[in-house]
Amino acid sequence: MNFRSDNEAPVAPEILHALCNANGGDAPSYGADRWSLALDEAFSECFETPVHVLPLVSGTAGNVIALSQVCPPYGAVFCHDEAHVLVDECGAFEFYSGGAKLIPLAGDHAKLAAATLEDRLGWFGVKGDHEPIPAAVSITQGTEYGAVYRPDEIAAISTVCRAHGMRLHMDGARFANALVSLGVAPADLTWRAGVDLMTLGFTKNGALAAEAVVLFDTDLVAGLSRRRMKGGHLLSKMRYVSSQLLACIEHGRWLDFAGRANAGAARLGRCLATSSEAALAHPVEINEVFVRLDDALDRRLRDAGFDYYPWPGTEGVSRLVVPWNVADEDLRAFEAVVSGA
Amino acid sequence: MNFRSDNEAPVAPEILHALCNANGGDAPSYGADRWSLALDEAFSECFETPVHVLPLVSGTAGNVIALSQVCPPYGAVFCHDEAHVLVDECGAFEFYSGGAKLIPLAGDHAKLAAATLEDRLGWFGVKGDHEPIPAAVSITQGTEYGAVYRPDEIAAISTVCRAHGMRLHMDGARFANALVSLGVAPADLTWRAGVDLMTLGFTKNGALAAEAVVLFDTDLVAGLSRRRMKGGHLLSKMRYVSSQLLACIEHGRWLDFAGRANAGAARLGRCLATSSEAALAHPVEINEVFVRLDDALDRRLRDAGFDYYPWPGTEGVSRLVVPWNVADEDLRAFEAVVSGA
Amino acid sequence: MNFRSDNEAPVAPEILHALCNANGGDAPSYGADRWSLALDEAFSECFETPVHVLPLVSGTAGNVIALSQVCPPYGAVFCHDEAHVLVDECGAFEFYSGGAKLIPLAGDHAKLAAATLEDRLGWFGVKGDHEPIPAAVSITQGTEYGAVYRPDEIAAISTVCRAHGMRLHMDGARFANALVSLGVAPADLTWRAGVDLMTLGFTKNGALAAEAVVLFDTDLVAGLSRRRMKGGHLLSKMRYVSSQLLACIEHGRWLDFAGRANAGAARLGRCLATSSEAALAHPVEINEVFVRLDDALDRRLRDAGFDYYPWPGTEGVSRLVVPWNVADEDLRAFEAVVSGA
Amino acid sequence: MNFRSDNEAPVAPEILHALCNANGGDAPSYGADRWSLALDEAFSECFETPVHVLPLVSGTAGNVIALSQVCPPYGAVFCHDEAHVLVDECGAFEFYSGGAKLIPLAGDHAKLAAATLEDRLGWFGVKGDHEPIPAAVSITQGTEYGAVYRPDEIAAISTVCRAHGMRLHMDGARFANALVSLGVAPADLTWRAGVDLMTLGFTKNGALAAEAVVLFDTDLVAGLSRRRMKGGHLLSKMRYVSSQLLACIEHGRWLDFAGRANAGAARLGRCLATSSEAALAHPVEINEVFVRLDDALDRRLRDAGFDYYPWPGTEGVSRLVVPWNVADEDLRAFEAVVSGA
Repeated sequence: MNFRSDNEAPVAPEILHALCNANGGDAPSYGADRWSLALDEAFSECFETPVHVLPLVSGTAGNVIALSQVCPPYGAVFCHDEAHVLVDECGAFEFYSGGAKLIPLAGDHAKLAAATLEDRLGWFGVKGDHEPIPAAVSITQGTEYGAVYRPDEIAAISTVCRAHGMRLHMDGARFANALVSLGVAPADLTWRAGVDLMTLGFTKNGALAAEAVVLFDTDLVAGLSRRRMKGGHLLSKMRYVSSQLLACIEHGRWLDFAGRANAGAARLGRCLATSSEAALAHPVEINEVFVRLDDALDRRLRDAGFDYYPWPGTEGVSRLVVPWNVADEDLRAFEAVVSGA
Repeated sequence: MNFRSDNEAPVAPEILHALCNANGGDAPSYGADRWSLALDEAFSECFETPVHVLPLVSGTAGNVIALSQVCPPYGAVFCHDEAHVLVDECGAFEFYSGGAKLIPLAGDHAKLAAATLEDRLGWFGVKGDHEPIPAAVSITQGTEYGAVYRPDEIAAISTVCRAHGMRLHMDGARFANALVSLGVAPADLTWRAGVDLMTLGFTKNGALAAEAVVLFDTDLVAGLSRRRMKGGHLLSKMRYVSSQLLACIEHGRWLDFAGRANAGAARLGRCLATSSEAALAHPVEINEVFVRLDDALDRRLRDAGFDYYPWPGTEGVSRLVVPWNVADEDLRAFEAVVSGA
Repeated sequence: MNFRSDNEAPVAPEILHALCNANGGDAPSYGADRWSLALDEAFSECFETPVHVLPLVSGTAGNVIALSQVCPPYGAVFCHDEAHVLVDECGAFEFYSGGAKLIPLAGDHAKLAAATLEDRLGWFGVKGDHEPIPAAVSITQGTEYGAVYRPDEIAAISTVCRAHGMRLHMDGARFANALVSLGVAPADLTWRAGVDLMTLGFTKNGALAAEAVVLFDTDLVAGLSRRRMKGGHLLSKMRYVSSQLLACIEHGRWLDFAGRANAGAARLGRCLATSSEAALAHPVEINEVFVRLDDALDRRLRDAGFDYYPWPGTEGVSRLVVPWNVADEDLRAFEAVVSGA
Repeated sequence: MNFRSDNEAPVAPEILHALCNANGGDAPSYGADRWSLALDEAFSECFETPVHVLPLVSGTAGNVIALSQVCPPYGAVFCHDEAHVLVDECGAFEFYSGGAKLIPLAGDHAKLAAATLEDRLGWFGVKGDHEPIPAAVSITQGTEYGAVYRPDEIAAISTVCRAHGMRLHMDGARFANALVSLGVAPADLTWRAGVDLMTLGFTKNGALAAEAVVLFDTDLVAGLSRRRMKGGHLLSKMRYVSSQLLACIEHGRWLDFAGRANAGAARLGRCLATSSEAALAHPVEINEVFVRLDDALDRRLRDAGFDYYPWPGTEGVSRLVVPWNVADEDLRAFEAVVSGA
């Protein structure tokens, strides 16, 4: 009854099976294996447009390799002030980019609004060389507070980006959850809405360690793989990463896993919303619930064996994350504790 | 009648004279000249304690060389959210430190309060490896809004630093102005109050290009000069920098220059404070005035030939900076325009 | 019949089994799982001294995280001019270290000699700040040309290191092969001979993706895990890496795998040594054979289905690498082709 | 009688005079002054083509800002194995470029030959992502051993650069000396021969601290000034640098200074060439003499008050550098000591 993090769940059997199946005999190293070579085609089909895919094992690596590809050392990336790349990656962006700047912007539910971005750009750069050049915007889908960007919201941000010569990056650590939440196609949430490149995560969604940088603007490809190498992220036996990536999107598995997690969070959210002992801090749109719990309810939940984290920097907000493999009895038990007040 | 910046003023004759006097014959290069070799002793006397001095020509370079000496790539430096090192140096800190983080904190008049720092440290680092290690605090004396830190305020910040194993750095771009404003000794505003190292600027105060990193904790010296070299800041003919530094502190010239500038700003501040057409945005404590001017007064001042900048990121605040060589007639003319309303 | 690289071989069943076994239920993320927590003890036993272990998935990451821990941005690391970290990692060291320098030194069979190091240090640093500070030496065990360092050779290098205040790092990508080759204990080739820290690789030796930085001088631990995070190398589901590491050293499996590979290479080396159509370029001491093949023999081998790489930067030298799972019939087939000349 | 370094000589009176003349009244800061604004036109005339000029105070800064503009972090710059940027700048290039690689090449008299470059490129990059991408070549004019590249030699290198998509950079720390030596126009040694950008130094040639990055390919300008800011090299009172630069090229002063220094070195070289106690290590083509001196002659010269450095990394070679202001009597005295053997 662990709602601490979707990173604590085990690997889905289908994905582990695919990884083990990749173990037959020799395979060329450093991404020349047949699984890695199949990625571009498989993801191009999934996204309904030609894409380039760079397999990785770490979402942080994906974010910072992608962003340093579109932001020079003297550039700036605008993001929400709760963005993972800003507050949870120990300066990986600043390191990989050669000292570029992240410019934090406020926004409800950890969502960046096009108008806020536009406002900030209005007086950004008035100091000339003393300020970096606006290079990119990074948005997180779903956000750090469990909200989702609708296609039109992304398109509005993209319009601002294009007007200022900036690229739009998406941190898609929980992209599948957003897809399921909105019931739209991958293309609708990305390139059709103006996203240039994304970090696409599967690890939180049932994979062992499988992430990818996906380029919709394939002009960006030059240098990308060298940046991966320079960061020490070119694995010699890449087939064991690429086979996971393929297995995740095959048969829509990533959507199944995310759907189960979302549905679980929705159930938690619904029962908490009706409780007089709890107040949701943010709408529940993916597999995360942010909630203020009365001490009594908090104690009952913990006594019943539920675990979850207080959220740093907030006053009394707890985060519950529902994993891909959540059990129905755990959800029922949770509901019972909440309603039993 | 230029109140745009103290960087636009000419070099004081005494300092230029000293520079020209250093031009007699050969001198060893790269800081082995007699002017450079005399720095440690001269500044140690000035600060009443043994210090190590690294001559430089740029305050930004001084800030980032000093801070990267006390903050590892995986470290964090806490500063005010208007700090020059955060908003005006185009990511120089992130570059020199190898991608370390600046953590912005709020505070009136661009001053950091010990309590604010303490609060932020209370929940900093709860995410473990995902957050950098607190390494240093950087305060600006006088601040970006023309305020000064009193010795007890600095000591309170230093106490927090020491409790958390952090170093205290001072950006002293207008340190002489703060000294004059408070009427205290250099030692009182630095090591006696717990400052470990500082960037000490003379360029805004009548020098041509003369800055220094001053180490009060001389254990920090190892590697400092290599960092200067690596940044391309070891000048071959260093005598022309060091001779300026010596000339500035000789005969208390830096205090004379700063005193004149402060007095000028005080006059501007006093007449604006009594005007119904103006509202001071911050107390006037050094050579800078931040003020909201009614359109009519703004127009009259500009028509009379006064020049100054609107301050970026604010609504209607103008900044007036008074240089070391301000002329009495300019001050009188300003007063006349203001009172003539 | 693939002698291209030990990175092309599949994962050993025992290791894959251990990885799959780690998939039961939830486990704390980011290295707080029980496999990761067991590493220090397991490796301390293996090395007969308390060590600290940082699990990773990439040898390049291991090398550069380890070296940047002992070499400041203004430092220098001495290595052989064929060292992997110098010529095969796309500048990862320069990136991670913040621009430190690798100083290449010559030496037979890609081995660094203590005397060569001593000589170079004799005139290193005479230019003062214009040169970096000697910080560390990195040696590769077995070397890039398949040679091994004996304990006394390592100790001699360590003596020079200590005399100059430098740390000794070992790139142990094929450390197990060296252990088997020399028939000594892990301790004998590392801390007992003066090695301070090492990168220990298992991926070339039957693992899926399992590397580790091993610290013998545990004073070096501060900051190490933050450097891993900053590089994007802190995997959320670390248990799948750590379980491999444990499986490799359990029951001496790493030595078994390496022993089989070494024995295979020895057989190749022996038959080539007696052929008039081949000339060994280096002694065969681990699982690699460097050889000049006459065109006729090269053609016969390739016609028979053997594959291997010409070695870049050499004239006509081929490299054959024998994997952990080499089949006896492949070795016999090779011998037949060679002797059938 | 100091032949240690041209960095030890004083500033030429004409240049110091120009600097002092720039001190009249206020001037816009950060390069918006009229001296700085005049640079592009003045240097465009001098080079007979439109150029962009970035004023600086350090040649190391010029080299690394220029090179990081044309070499991405995953790129490589080829240079001579004695190049200043490789061996004398404490890793400034690796730092500024974000960890790019310098690839050293051999060549007589510290000159790079087009054929050597071509050869190296023949097997560079065969390792794919494990090697950086060839981005630029950097040549030093005059070289670190006092030789000069003729226009046809530069053009041959440029041809190789263009064939491989690389830029050609010139470190022109002693460019004026090369101009005088060859008796050609600045254009002939730069863009007409295929140089894309250069670091042009005046400090060793009579200036106080005046260097410039000169772009012949003005497409490279974007980001260049931000890189300068990020390095802490945007001086607030830039007029005092730019006025030096203008004074140097006005009336051909830089050629006069260099001509005097070259002529002095030629005299030293001629008398040493005829001495049985000396052997020139390199042809004397600019203001530097590299020579092996018998102990007796070395002792006589030092007893007579001459000073010069043994050259690091060589056996018994001394370097004598003749400054812009060398006195005829010093040259005569030197000749007397040599011939008096």
